[in-house]
Amino acid sequence: MVLLREDSTKIEIQAIKAKKAAKRLSILSTEEKNQALTLLADQLEAKVEDILKANEIDIKYGRIEGYSEAYLDRLTLTRERVFDFTSGLREVAKLPVPVGDTLSKWTLDNGLLVKKVSVPLGVIGMIYEARPNVTVDATGLALKSGNAILLKGGSSAIFSNKAIFKVIQETLVKTAIPKEVVQLIESTDRTATQQLFTMKEHIDVLIPRGGASLIYSVVNEATVPILETGVGNCHLYIDREADVEKTLNILVNAKTDRPAVCNAVETAIIHLDWLEHNKQALIKTLKDHNISVHADKKAAAVIPGAGLANEEDWATEYLSLDLAIKTVTSVEEAIEHIDKYGTKHSEAIITENRKTSKKFMDLVDAAAIYHNASTRFTDGGALGLGAEIGISTQKLHARGPMGLAELTTTKYIMIGNGHVR
Amino acid sequence: MVLLREDSTKIEIQAIKAKKAAKRLSILSTEEKNQALTLLADQLEAKVEDILKANEIDIKYGRIEGYSEAYLDRLTLTRERVFDFTSGLREVAKLPVPVGDTLSKWTLDNGLLVKKVSVPLGVIGMIYEARPNVTVDATGLALKSGNAILLKGGSSAIFSNKAIFKVIQETLVKTAIPKEVVQLIESTDRTATQQLFTMKEHIDVLIPRGGASLIYSVVNEATVPILETGVGNCHLYIDREADVEKTLNILVNAKTDRPAVCNAVETAIIHLDWLEHNKQALIKTLKDHNISVHADKKAAAVIPGAGLANEEDWATEYLSLDLAIKTVTSVEEAIEHIDKYGTKHSEAIITENRKTSKKFMDLVDAAAIYHNASTRFTDGGALGLGAEIGISTQKLHARGPMGLAELTTTKYIMIGNGHVR
Repeated sequence: MVLLREDSTKIEIQAIKAKKAAKRLSILSTEEKNQALTLLADQLEAKVEDILKANEIDIKYGRIEGYSEAYLDRLTLTRERVFDFTSGLREVAKLPVPVGDTLSKWTLDNGLLVKKVSVPLGVIGMIYEARPNVTVDATGLALKSGNAILLKGGSSAIFSNKAIFKVIQETLVKTAIPKEVVQLIESTDRTATQQLFTMKEHIDVLIPRGGASLIYSVVNEATVPILETGVGNCHLYIDREADVEKTLNILVNAKTDRPAVCNAVETAIIHLDWLEHNKQALIKTLKDHNISVHADKKAAAVIPGAGLANEEDWATEYLSLDLAIKTVTSVEEAIEHIDKYGTKHSEAIITENRKTSKKFMDLVDAAAIYHNASTRFTDGGALGLGAEIGISTQKLHARGPMGLAELTTTKYIMIGNGHVR
Repeated sequence: MVLLREDSTKIEIQAIKAKKAAKRLSILSTEEKNQALTLLADQLEAKVEDILKANEIDIKYGRIEGYSEAYLDRLTLTRERVFDFTSGLREVAKLPVPVGDTLSKWTLDNGLLVKKVSVPLGVIGMIYEARPNVTVDATGLALKSGNAILLKGGSSAIFSNKAIFKVIQETLVKTAIPKEVVQLIESTDRTATQQLFTMKEHIDVLIPRGGASLIYSVVNEATVPILETGVGNCHLYIDREADVEKTLNILVNAKTDRPAVCNAVETAIIHLDWLEHNKQALIKTLKDHNISVHADKKAAAVIPGAGLANEEDWATEYLSLDLAIKTVTSVEEAIEHIDKYGTKHSEAIITENRKTSKKFMDLVDAAAIYHNASTRFTDGGALGLGAEIGISTQKLHARGPMGLAELTTTKYIMIGNGHVR
């Protein structure tokens, strides 16, 4: 128990140091921040062999643990992947700084000047799983937006994260940035995590990035405000008036381009009339792309080899080549299904009817809604928003891809001359 | 136990109905919403006697319960107070609707059109205490911004709230607005409250408005995202270079104008040099305005009748004519004290030195920061922001006074022509 207490104290000390460092960071110049980002990119490239060696240890343990190939793939670093994230850092260095702007400004009748200015959030707690690239991406976005960051990566990536973190620390001491702006939380016990989730005084926001169970536990246990990311049970509604070629292209792209990501489609909702007229083309497409179908009775009767979907299928983010198929007789029925099972991430409608698409876009409640386009575009880079720290599926503060602006808040500044009310 | 289960189910049914009603509300026209707001104002005025009679019962029970006079004052309705909040409704009817706007819009190189539009949050859970005016104010803001609202007022105001709610329901059935858009939660047991706090599926945001203990319990128990409001342990820093007349005017206004509100000052942090030069004027002012002083040793030695402040005083939102006084020898020391005890609401500095005020405004972390002005201006109306549903002391989503815009979120709408990634 003494160990746990010492450990708990350690996290609290880390958070307090982060808060102080954030304050010092907030008054540094953009140039100082950009220099640090560029230097960090240089240093990570120079130390790529060390990072890859550490990563090999994680992979070795991962194989012993029996992780899936998909999981090991997310965990694996290569020279190319490291250079991908260093070029990401260089991109972030080029983006405009999102803090210190006067967003609006007015003078009251009594002469009091009111300004609303953008400021950093303060201290970000980043909680993530297998991907070591988050250690670099999140560090870059936090630094640029003037925030301190506490990194709590998954234990499966601990050697990789430590190697990357070592480079970050060695770099920061050579710059104007206080090194406590970026800290790695190494303890993995329950008490430490609980503390991280509830240190409202010292941590301004938690960003969980990972699977449904990680996000669920953060949402349920945290009192620190959260930017919820990622779970995407996305739907593609194929309307009665959907163009066949567009439909099949989009279905294949949304399902098979990268099945393991959150913006992939998990359920196709198909209007019965469309299904009847286009079943042969659909069956061929599904077969050609090795898509495993879990269908309701009406669709299963038409699609050879389809399994029968149950309640769980409608709610599942497969993250694989599995696809649920639900048939409907109206756009309203499709919307009702999405209301019930969607995770408010990305939803698409294929139709040539503008009224139908308008109804869908007005009534579906999600971060991103597509008409005649693939859900795969829900991504900061793909939508032209710049680097992203995650995709918000909540409604408060940020919705959809979150970049630098989403890591800021505001302050009202009032300047008077003895003004009283 | 059966009763509790029936009761729990009732709240869930209310929330589901609210969600459906919100969807129907979201496609109504601005005119229909404004007509409903105006009609509601008319009807509340017509039924003012019924409302006042119901309020008398709350007051009677309140006296039996032994509530403080300040509490009873917040609970009390008069003809004038009712007409105040109906004129508030008419004001809200005149404000522009904050939803349906295209906030930004661009076309990607591949031709995909991207739009970011403002949309209602959905269902708001409003949790409040003694003030029956919140029942009307929150209803008006919710309707105008296209949101449904579940009202959970304090049991001490239940007769008043029910009488007001009756008028709301009788009015809504005469309009295009589904009456389930506004619902009163009458059950007061623990299970019902727990459900309200955790129905993430059906409720989009909880807004607690009331004392520190109410807000604490919501923050600690809720999994539904929160817009935290109101606790204001506000400070007035009187710098070495503070103008005496401005200082005393602002101190009196910020402490005594309405001591029971969240933007009143609770602690004066005084530079020792200023105190030494201006003690006579300060002592006279404090005495003339019946301000009870809880001071640190150095200030207590100078101010006759001052009690000695302890740790608790620095952290207390007195909401009375009590004032804590802390002495410092630099602006940095003042900022450190605010960092430790402030609630990130409103903080003020009085100084003629621009560099000192800039440092204070840059480094103090709060929703509203004042230079040579009273903290009493932190209010939607006073700052020219229109009606407010509360003052946010959190950093995510909204900071400071929250009006109609803060009751909205966004959606990305992408329009393609078969676009795939």
